[in-house]
Amino acid sequence: MAEELVGNCLVAQSGGPTSVINASVAGVVQEALEHECIEEIYGGLNGVLGILKEDLIDLAEESQQTIRGLRYTPAASLGTCRFKLKRAEDYNRVLEVFETHNIRYFFYAGGNDSQDTANKISKLAQERGFQMRAIGIPKTIDNDLVVTDHCPGYGSVIKHISTVVREMCLDHEAMGQHDLVSILEVMGRNAGWIAAGASLAKGNRENPDKPPHLIYLPEVPFSVEKYLDDVKRVLSRNKYCMVVVGEGLVDADGNYVNTSSSATDAFGHAQLGGCGDYLQGLVEENLGIKARSAKLGIHQRAAASCSSQADNDESFMAGRAAVKAAISGETDKMVTLTRSTDSDQYVCETGLEPLENIANGVKMLPKEWINEDGVSMNYQFFKYAMPLIKGEVEVPYEHGLPQYVKLSKNRVSKQLGEHHFE
Amino acid sequence: MAEELVGNCLVAQSGGPTSVINASVAGVVQEALEHECIEEIYGGLNGVLGILKEDLIDLAEESQQTIRGLRYTPAASLGTCRFKLKRAEDYNRVLEVFETHNIRYFFYAGGNDSQDTANKISKLAQERGFQMRAIGIPKTIDNDLVVTDHCPGYGSVIKHISTVVREMCLDHEAMGQHDLVSILEVMGRNAGWIAAGASLAKGNRENPDKPPHLIYLPEVPFSVEKYLDDVKRVLSRNKYCMVVVGEGLVDADGNYVNTSSSATDAFGHAQLGGCGDYLQGLVEENLGIKARSAKLGIHQRAAASCSSQADNDESFMAGRAAVKAAISGETDKMVTLTRSTDSDQYVCETGLEPLENIANGVKMLPKEWINEDGVSMNYQFFKYAMPLIKGEVEVPYEHGLPQYVKLSKNRVSKQLGEHHFE
Repeated sequence: MAEELVGNCLVAQSGGPTSVINASVAGVVQEALEHECIEEIYGGLNGVLGILKEDLIDLAEESQQTIRGLRYTPAASLGTCRFKLKRAEDYNRVLEVFETHNIRYFFYAGGNDSQDTANKISKLAQERGFQMRAIGIPKTIDNDLVVTDHCPGYGSVIKHISTVVREMCLDHEAMGQHDLVSILEVMGRNAGWIAAGASLAKGNRENPDKPPHLIYLPEVPFSVEKYLDDVKRVLSRNKYCMVVVGEGLVDADGNYVNTSSSATDAFGHAQLGGCGDYLQGLVEENLGIKARSAKLGIHQRAAASCSSQADNDESFMAGRAAVKAAISGETDKMVTLTRSTDSDQYVCETGLEPLENIANGVKMLPKEWINEDGVSMNYQFFKYAMPLIKGEVEVPYEHGLPQYVKLSKNRVSKQLGEHHFE
Repeated sequence: MAEELVGNCLVAQSGGPTSVINASVAGVVQEALEHECIEEIYGGLNGVLGILKEDLIDLAEESQQTIRGLRYTPAASLGTCRFKLKRAEDYNRVLEVFETHNIRYFFYAGGNDSQDTANKISKLAQERGFQMRAIGIPKTIDNDLVVTDHCPGYGSVIKHISTVVREMCLDHEAMGQHDLVSILEVMGRNAGWIAAGASLAKGNRENPDKPPHLIYLPEVPFSVEKYLDDVKRVLSRNKYCMVVVGEGLVDADGNYVNTSSSATDAFGHAQLGGCGDYLQGLVEENLGIKARSAKLGIHQRAAASCSSQADNDESFMAGRAAVKAAISGETDKMVTLTRSTDSDQYVCETGLEPLENIANGVKMLPKEWINEDGVSMNYQFFKYAMPLIKGEVEVPYEHGLPQYVKLSKNRVSKQLGEHHFE
């Protein structure tokens, strides 16, 4: 048993929000309340940015109702950021804030960039001899963190997208007089996990005649000729062709296909989007067939009213597991979700993995889960993804709309001077 | 009491599908089963197109489970069309099909074009001395039918869009480090009812600081200068600016703003779409501010999993009312939804209005419900729209996704030769 470490804890959120990232915060708060060695439960506003600014709130002062409401409230209630810690002054400042507020437990929910940040902060604390424990909580709709079986946030986004595809296609079937190509552009920067997840709209098994008929993934280099052939093949069997495309589509040279903007974010990642319109144009210009495209945009990662109970439960569990791990002496680790291989039943538990094994890695969709046609997923993917969308989160409604909670955000008194950004 | 008319009934669906148009068919079937003067209950596949082709199905042969399932299944389960009856041969053919199959009751669910079609068919039957009764059932997410207080389909689409706006904005708030303009393009060909409905995301009353901050309606001529000023004004008070735009936006000369295509449908209506990207570009190019746009596309009218129970109930009630009216001797009328003005409570009942008063009319959003700023709705709109989104339709789920029903479509034997289209 590790030495007891007494002090305050801090939880923060980073990167793109999800439908269930707040459930992890609820899990951290609920678990932290049960351990006397954790004195105050702080939240950092807007990820590391708020820590640099000493923008901390007292989560224990929030009502129980509010903390319970975090279970079904989408997006990041603490706020998030895409700010990248680079300068030594920034790292020093984080440590200074931790020391000043006696933060001995740091829980950071985010993707691979965030896990890298948590790791570096913890390593610096060790160098300085400041005793603290840092545990990462996985979060990303992209499902591209290595080691963990899957990521909280992913199940909900594919449940939502599969629902959208299923409902759209009933409309297409109803209108089914003419050839129609319908394109749905979904997120997914480097890996096709999200686009692949739309396969579940087919039901619980693969079926080439059920929509979506064609899925274009970043893992399969895009060819215009093959795309047009794929569309023609589908339209020879069906009245309409439902296409799902991930925004991160690349050509044979590895270049992004038709990004609408040359902008990049703070981590140097390209801002993507526009593939759907591009695929629409290709069909209209080359085949003279009517096409439509839709782009769900940000909503796909915030649709809590259509989120997965399994995903939500696992996100909550990951938050609790992070606190339990830290209390038991673990540090510099990320909570992982593991899948029991003992039985045919899906059983998800938590594990731990060193942060350095997570940071900056990207888990691609396994090539062997993609059918030979390059545009559909095989039974291995269905087996993997089906359990992740199970169950419906019950969101309370008022005046006909989902009622989400808002933190009252009682600020912890600042004790340091202002931090100077570049 | 009208003379009893004994024979078969036919129900068909036309125009763009909605989340609740099948509930009207369920209402027709349920009511028709209760009247002995209705012998067979037929469904026409794909609107008038199926009638021309003699593609009729026997709805009484569908299981009770299936008919019950129509209550929550989106899109048009009988299929729909945008085919316009023009030639005398086509009208004659419809009459021939009606006579051959002894169809004495015709129920047609659709928008204004469809009500016009129903009216013309009935008038021709009267000329020919074929005794029949035709009753229209209102249907359109556009909410632009005249006389009726509102249209089945509208409540559900604005409930969905308001939910999307509310959830997207939680994401924007979480990411709220920088100026961001977020644009959501919604449907609405000639009238701004749908875009206006997004106001409900604010809650139960108007509030300029709650999203959506700016709503652009076809009723207010679009000016680039005013738009950019509006955005700057919002960003001076908020970290982000949520914009909702109807696809049918027009400039001061009455021309559509940036339609992405010059195509028109069978009724000569322009195929719209692209306003969102246009507004995004204007902000990026003129203000140098990051903008995103999303386009929900077809899904917004098919999102039964996020539909309004009030809307669904009224759609079902309209189907039943159509049958009751016809049985009591009414013809050439459309069922209307009326709102009781007796009390502050919302009470919706049905009425009847001659089809000729509905056909080809368009009900614009009342100018006096739009605030002086031209980009927000006042309390009169909230009072009007709030009751329409009340209650959540409970859709059954299986394998994590909504389970909708499919008609088994037992065909009625064809007795005529093939119809020759142009």
